[in-house]
Amino acid sequence: MERTLIKDIVDIKEKLVQIAGRVVNLRKLGNITFAIMQDRSGTIQTVWEKKISAKIGDIVSITGEIRKDTRAKGGCEIAGDKIEIIATNAEDYPIDLSKAELTLQLTTLLDHRTITLRHPKIQAIFALYDILLASYERVMREEDFKEIKTPKILEAASEGGANFFTIEYFQKKAFLAQSPQLYKQIMVGVFERVFEIGPVFRAEPHFTTRHVNEYVSLDAEMGHIESFRDVTAMLTKVLKKMFAQIEKEGAKYLELYNVKMPKVPDEIPHIKLSEIKEVIKEKYGYEIPETTDIDPEGEKLAGKYALEQFGSDFIFITHYPWKDKPFYTMPSPGNSEETEGYDLLLKGIEIVTGSQRIHEYKMLIENMEKKGVKPAGMEFYLDTFKFAMPPHGGWGMGSERLIQQIFGLKSVKEAVLFPRDVKRLSP
Amino acid sequence: MERTLIKDIVDIKEKLVQIAGRVVNLRKLGNITFAIMQDRSGTIQTVWEKKISAKIGDIVSITGEIRKDTRAKGGCEIAGDKIEIIATNAEDYPIDLSKAELTLQLTTLLDHRTITLRHPKIQAIFALYDILLASYERVMREEDFKEIKTPKILEAASEGGANFFTIEYFQKKAFLAQSPQLYKQIMVGVFERVFEIGPVFRAEPHFTTRHVNEYVSLDAEMGHIESFRDVTAMLTKVLKKMFAQIEKEGAKYLELYNVKMPKVPDEIPHIKLSEIKEVIKEKYGYEIPETTDIDPEGEKLAGKYALEQFGSDFIFITHYPWKDKPFYTMPSPGNSEETEGYDLLLKGIEIVTGSQRIHEYKMLIENMEKKGVKPAGMEFYLDTFKFAMPPHGGWGMGSERLIQQIFGLKSVKEAVLFPRDVKRLSP
Repeated sequence: MERTLIKDIVDIKEKLVQIAGRVVNLRKLGNITFAIMQDRSGTIQTVWEKKISAKIGDIVSITGEIRKDTRAKGGCEIAGDKIEIIATNAEDYPIDLSKAELTLQLTTLLDHRTITLRHPKIQAIFALYDILLASYERVMREEDFKEIKTPKILEAASEGGANFFTIEYFQKKAFLAQSPQLYKQIMVGVFERVFEIGPVFRAEPHFTTRHVNEYVSLDAEMGHIESFRDVTAMLTKVLKKMFAQIEKEGAKYLELYNVKMPKVPDEIPHIKLSEIKEVIKEKYGYEIPETTDIDPEGEKLAGKYALEQFGSDFIFITHYPWKDKPFYTMPSPGNSEETEGYDLLLKGIEIVTGSQRIHEYKMLIENMEKKGVKPAGMEFYLDTFKFAMPPHGGWGMGSERLIQQIFGLKSVKEAVLFPRDVKRLSP
Repeated sequence: MERTLIKDIVDIKEKLVQIAGRVVNLRKLGNITFAIMQDRSGTIQTVWEKKISAKIGDIVSITGEIRKDTRAKGGCEIAGDKIEIIATNAEDYPIDLSKAELTLQLTTLLDHRTITLRHPKIQAIFALYDILLASYERVMREEDFKEIKTPKILEAASEGGANFFTIEYFQKKAFLAQSPQLYKQIMVGVFERVFEIGPVFRAEPHFTTRHVNEYVSLDAEMGHIESFRDVTAMLTKVLKKMFAQIEKEGAKYLELYNVKMPKVPDEIPHIKLSEIKEVIKEKYGYEIPETTDIDPEGEKLAGKYALEQFGSDFIFITHYPWKDKPFYTMPSPGNSEETEGYDLLLKGIEIVTGSQRIHEYKMLIENMEKKGVKPAGMEFYLDTFKFAMPPHGGWGMGSERLIQQIFGLKSVKEAVLFPRDVKRLSP
C-alpha cells in the first residue's frame, strides 16, 4: 500500500489509507486511544479501539479507515487498524512537546533546539521563514534583479575594519564577510540589479535580544538611480509584494500566533535622523545620547511616532551622519556632514540598513582618505570605479529580524534555527 | 523623459525614447558612429551622424528616435539625438571587452574579474547561474521541501575532521562548515523534507580544474524513504525539471556558447562502484589505483561508458566502500563493506554526492566507534537520534560544477564569480 499524505486524505476516494509520520500526541479515554499523527503536510487524529505500543515522538506507519467527522480537525479522522513502529524514542522527550505552548526559558529552548524545533509553534516560525525566503527571491526576480553568490572568505577586513572574524587560510590570515557590500556593488557594473541571500558574520560581542553573530542577510543593489529615494521606493514595493505573499501562504502559521502581517503603506514615511531626534525629545521627553546616532530606545520611540503620526508600522530614518557611515556611503549633496544613508524600522526595530553609494572613483578615494580608511586589500574594489559605474544604492535586510517582528518574538534568536552568540556555538 | 528598457523598445509606440546603460562597442564608418548600448535587459545599436565623446565602457543616457530595421538585432535601432555621459572610464579597459571572445589565461581572467565579468560571454554564465538557482528552489518547493538556513560557524570539526578552516571565535577556536550535513539531517526530524542553498568551505590544498575552497552547495535531505533509490529517483526528477526550466529560460545564454542542455533520462542508469571498475578495466584498459575509490580518469571513463552504453550524460555510481564514506552513511544491508552511498556524474565529472544515512541511534554510535570518530562537539547531533528519526537520505550538489558541465568550461573557477583557491583570496 502506498503512503498518502495527511493533507490529501480529505479528498481521496479510497476507504483504507496508509499514512506515515510522527506521533505528536496520545490520549486514552477508557479503552479508546487517540493518537495525533503529523507528517510534512499536516496533522490528523487516529482512533484505536485496541492497545497500541506507540509512544509520543515515535515515527510510525499506520493503516486505517477514513472516517468523515465534521467535528475533527480537517474534516476526518482515521480508525486505526495496523500500526508499524519505524523508529522509537529511546527516552522520553526532555521537554513536553504535546502541550499547546512551550513556556521555556530561551536558554532551555536553544539548548534542546534539535527537539524543541519539533513543536508546532516552533515549526511555524521556520515554515514562515521558508515562505519569506521564497517571496524575496520571487519578488526580486520580478523586479529584474539577478541572484548572485559572493565569497564569504575575504582577504581584507574591509568596510571599516571592526568586528570581523579571522580565519586561518592556508598559512595566511583571512576574514569572514560582514556583508556582500563590495561585491554586490561590483556586480551592479555587470548586471545593474543584483540580490543575494546569504550568511553574514559579525564579531560583535553584544548580548541583546536583536543580535546574533551569524545571520542571513537579504541584500540588494541597483544601478541607474536618481537618488536614494529610488532605493527606498523599490524596497517598499518589494516588501509590499512579499508581505502579501507571506500573508496568503503563511496564514495558518500567523494564526497560530494570533498575529497579522504588518501593513506596508504605499509610501512609507521618511524622516531625517536629525528631525526624529527632535520629535522624540519634544514628544516623548527622551534624549538620544550624544555618543550614538540613534539607540534602541530611540528606535522604539521612532516606531511609536510612526504609528501615532502616520498609522504606519514602518518608518525610514534618513540622512545618517557622515561620521557614522562607512566610506562607500554617498555624502548628502549640499551637506557633507550627512549622508544618503537610511535605516528602515519595523515596529521600532531596525530591519534594513541601506544607502546610495559613491560611484565616482575620485570621490571614493577622497572619502576614504578623509575617513582614514586604508585601501590595502580593497584595490580590486576601488579599481572597479575607474571603469564607469552607474549611480547606485541598495540595502541589507535582516531576515531573522523580519521574522522576529512579524511574530513578535522576544529575541531574534528564536527566529534562527541554530543561533550563534558570544557563548553559543552549539547545537 | 522616462528611461525605457532596451528590451521594451521594439514594442513601444512612441517615436522618441530615452535609454541608459553602458557603451559596449563603438565603430566609426565615415561620418557615422555606431554605439552599441547595453542595459540590464539587452543590447541595441545606436547610430550617430554627429561626433560623440562617449568611449567604450562609459555609462550614458541617450535620447533618440526608434528606427525599425529588420537587419538590426532585435528589429530596431536608435538614431541618436542627445547623449549624456553619466560616468566615464578614467582609463581604457585593461582588456578589450568589445571582442566577441575573450581569449584569456585563467589567471588573467580572474585577476581582472571585476572587469571581465562585464563581457557578454561571462555575463551569460552568471545569468544562467541565476536561472539555475531559481529553478532549484522552485522545484524543491514543488516537491514539498522547505528551505532552511543552517549555521556556517561550528563548534566542532565534525564529519570526520579533515579539511576544515579554523576561525577565531571570541577567544575560542571554531570551524567553518564543510557542509550542512548534520543540521539538515536534524531538520528531517522537524520538516521531513528540507533543502538549503548555501556556501560550504573546504580547506583542501588541491589545485585542480574542479576544486575551489568555497562553493555553493545545493543540499537536500528527505525522510520516510525505503532505500537510497528513493533519493536518486527524487534527484532525477528534480534535475529533469530544473534542466527543462534552464533550457527554456536560458536559451540565449546557451546559444552564445553553442551548447544544449544535457538530456536527463527518465531513469538515470545506476551502476555499482565495484562493477564500473571492472567495466573500465575491461572496456578501456584503465585500472583505477587501489588507493582511491575512483579517480578523475575513472570518472571520465565512467561518463564515456554511460554515453556509449546507455546514451546518457548522467550516471549514478553506487555502493561506495564503507571505509571511504563518513560515519553517518548507511552501510549496505547484507554487505557491511559497502554503503548506500552514491555519486552522480555529469559528462564524467562528479556533481553530486549523497547517500542514505543511518537513522538509528545505536547503529550510529556503533558505526562511529568502528570508524574511530570522536563524538566530542557532536553530542547535540547524536542525541537527536535518541528521539525517533525516520529513515532518510539526501544529497549535496555542486552548483558551480553543474554550470561548468553545462557550458563545458575548462575550470570550475570560471563558474564562480570570485573564486577562492589556495592562492587566490582576491578579488
